[in-house]
Amino acid sequence: MYKKSRNKINIGLIGLGTIGSGVAKFLMARRGLLLKRTGIDFNLSLVCDKDLSLKRDVFLPKGMLTKDTDKVINDPDIHIIVELIGGIHPAKEIVIEALSKGKHVVTANKLLLASEGEEIFQKAKISNREVYFEASVAGGIPIIKAIREGMVSNRFSSVFGILNGTSNYILSSMSSECSSFKTALKEAQSKGYAEKDPSLDIKGMDSSHKLAILSLLAFGKRVDLDDIYVEGIEDISNLDIQYAKEFGYGIKLLAIAKCHGNELEARVHPTLLPLEHLLSSVSGAYNAIFIEADLVGKQLFYGQGAGKLPTTSAVISDIVDAGHKIICGKNSVKQIIPKDSEIKKLRKMDEVVTRYYAHFSAIDKPGVLANIANLLGRHNISIASVVQKERREAHIVPIVMLTHEAKELDMQAALSRINKLPAIKKKSIVIRLEK
Amino acid sequence: MYKKSRNKINIGLIGLGTIGSGVAKFLMARRGLLLKRTGIDFNLSLVCDKDLSLKRDVFLPKGMLTKDTDKVINDPDIHIIVELIGGIHPAKEIVIEALSKGKHVVTANKLLLASEGEEIFQKAKISNREVYFEASVAGGIPIIKAIREGMVSNRFSSVFGILNGTSNYILSSMSSECSSFKTALKEAQSKGYAEKDPSLDIKGMDSSHKLAILSLLAFGKRVDLDDIYVEGIEDISNLDIQYAKEFGYGIKLLAIAKCHGNELEARVHPTLLPLEHLLSSVSGAYNAIFIEADLVGKQLFYGQGAGKLPTTSAVISDIVDAGHKIICGKNSVKQIIPKDSEIKKLRKMDEVVTRYYAHFSAIDKPGVLANIANLLGRHNISIASVVQKERREAHIVPIVMLTHEAKELDMQAALSRINKLPAIKKKSIVIRLEK
Repeated sequence: MYKKSRNKINIGLIGLGTIGSGVAKFLMARRGLLLKRTGIDFNLSLVCDKDLSLKRDVFLPKGMLTKDTDKVINDPDIHIIVELIGGIHPAKEIVIEALSKGKHVVTANKLLLASEGEEIFQKAKISNREVYFEASVAGGIPIIKAIREGMVSNRFSSVFGILNGTSNYILSSMSSECSSFKTALKEAQSKGYAEKDPSLDIKGMDSSHKLAILSLLAFGKRVDLDDIYVEGIEDISNLDIQYAKEFGYGIKLLAIAKCHGNELEARVHPTLLPLEHLLSSVSGAYNAIFIEADLVGKQLFYGQGAGKLPTTSAVISDIVDAGHKIICGKNSVKQIIPKDSEIKKLRKMDEVVTRYYAHFSAIDKPGVLANIANLLGRHNISIASVVQKERREAHIVPIVMLTHEAKELDMQAALSRINKLPAIKKKSIVIRLEK
Repeated sequence: MYKKSRNKINIGLIGLGTIGSGVAKFLMARRGLLLKRTGIDFNLSLVCDKDLSLKRDVFLPKGMLTKDTDKVINDPDIHIIVELIGGIHPAKEIVIEALSKGKHVVTANKLLLASEGEEIFQKAKISNREVYFEASVAGGIPIIKAIREGMVSNRFSSVFGILNGTSNYILSSMSSECSSFKTALKEAQSKGYAEKDPSLDIKGMDSSHKLAILSLLAFGKRVDLDDIYVEGIEDISNLDIQYAKEFGYGIKLLAIAKCHGNELEARVHPTLLPLEHLLSSVSGAYNAIFIEADLVGKQLFYGQGAGKLPTTSAVISDIVDAGHKIICGKNSVKQIIPKDSEIKKLRKMDEVVTRYYAHFSAIDKPGVLANIANLLGRHNISIASVVQKERREAHIVPIVMLTHEAKELDMQAALSRINKLPAIKKKSIVIRLEK
């Protein structure tokens, strides 16, 4: 069917779940297309999964499927191992072993790279092989390639964006349909945009894994997952979405990495963004990454950040890059961690300076606003605008404000004192703001 | 200063204008950074310009500058020729000669590739060398890389976007400041966003050059520049921008390539876009490209489409890619024109089916609207919504409407008959619409 070609690359695929079966299906279905476009014949030779009895969306020729990971890794004819089982173990052992055996590795495993990336990239370097991971961040959006290759001569100042489609879907429908968090979550679950246990997504952890990978790439700084400040969207109420809108802002779950001299800020939390900001127009289960760098200026990349087909596209793009590398013969392995980093340390959350939206629930009596303003002032926080709303519940009025830039430590100190005021009847809500 | 490295790549730069001096400056200033990031030592060895007396933004060491193109092309130590003189001649001869001499070529020359691309890519293939051209479309946005590499396994259905920053700047300020085309153009000129002779930009030709390159990449179809329907923004009035806004649309100069089975549509014209479309949020001198492909779904790439630094970033990214290829030794040259194209022909503009915005200027008397609607109906054009405005000039009322999908041929036929109605007092304005 295909001309015999010296440019034949054999691929071993480990993990035949949703993404795995997409990759298997399209590697076979587009083998001819890829040959025409790249001059390389990509041959899926072995596929491994622990459960061979499951029904899948892809037909594999007899003999291609195995339960034995070692059979794939040790096959001397296989050039590329595609790891799609997810999780840290045994994915890490598989990747390390594959590199030892001289294979290039393609993976979509964000958790693995966010937590064990340094060791894996080190192993790749020693083995003179590459690890490709386009699919680990923002699915089909070629953001890893854009940062590593497209902007190779740039110094980055900030990388931030919507990295979790589930949370964005929920916040979008809360905003457009005035629904509560619970209702929006249920809807997302029924439509398949949220898992039965949505914690990883809505609590911001998924975003933080991706942020760790982007920080490593753009700033050359390994960030411990534990050191990233993470706040989820569970406490966002429809009321705050409406108030924010009145101020001209939308609320998005942002993953933010910013460089200040030799310090890096890395945080994930719900964020007010001006409605005219491009990221505010990103609705539904989409992802978008906003980048500022010294030569290119501002750039935005938008697309589907998850899902079978977009992720398949990213994995196959990596396989093709690995194929070109293998055909080359000589290994001029690209640096995964830029060696030029001037970033010395991660800025502590306490030291972060940002603007805030604050929503206080106070008893409707004279002097309350003055008390709050006073406490903010004493902690160096100045108010940019304030709206005292009509009473919503008996005797309780919402006081909503935007502050100018303030230090997180000061804000937290002020908050803790404000929350103790006798007139404050509910825990105050504070959401950070980006412009 | 730099460790002696076998991975040293020598670069010859031809054309030291705005972009050329940016590339020269940052190749030198970031030599260490690039070495750290890529493992390759990129050495700018010769720079050629026809006028050595001009003052430039970059200091070149003695002996690096020459007026002799041949000296650069024939230098056996030079691996990569960067062509930044623009125009077709002598750029074409330089590129062809450089390929003959075994050099890889990096160029930002959109006109050259749009008109002579096929011959140049053919020459590159025979010479077993590559031509890189990231900077030719959308400046700093790595869109060429995204299409060729990031989405290598995708079949594309449409590629469209804002490819000309000047026109977008003018339309944006007409919209936000209610200014006339003339005023907005003058402002763009005074701010340096438009050239003294802005024809190439505002008449849509610049966009059509870029569209030809994108069509070749995404659809494998060479499109003659003469075959691309091109309409500029000179006839867009502030009035139409305001009317469009009332219908919920903005007006953008779009370059559109769409595939319908084995036919390709390629056209450039002002276009109504729903205000909630991401491209509608692209204001000022920015570019953005919207892509639909079968695996990744919808993607958008946004950034500065021109300017010294963004373009420099794209050129250096290409130089680095060429460097990796050279270090590799073996040449697995990537296919520039996908060999898989199913596109057999370009769809004629007459056959294009689209929705329309139409603005008729009619005498305010009974039966006029009926006459217009009648003529549209006879040409199979059905009206989606219509607004008859209050009289603006003596006895003349604007009748503004959106149609459902119709064939261009039908629309033109109807228009020509409507324009002949005695009640019609000005040439009717028709703007196409995308959703």
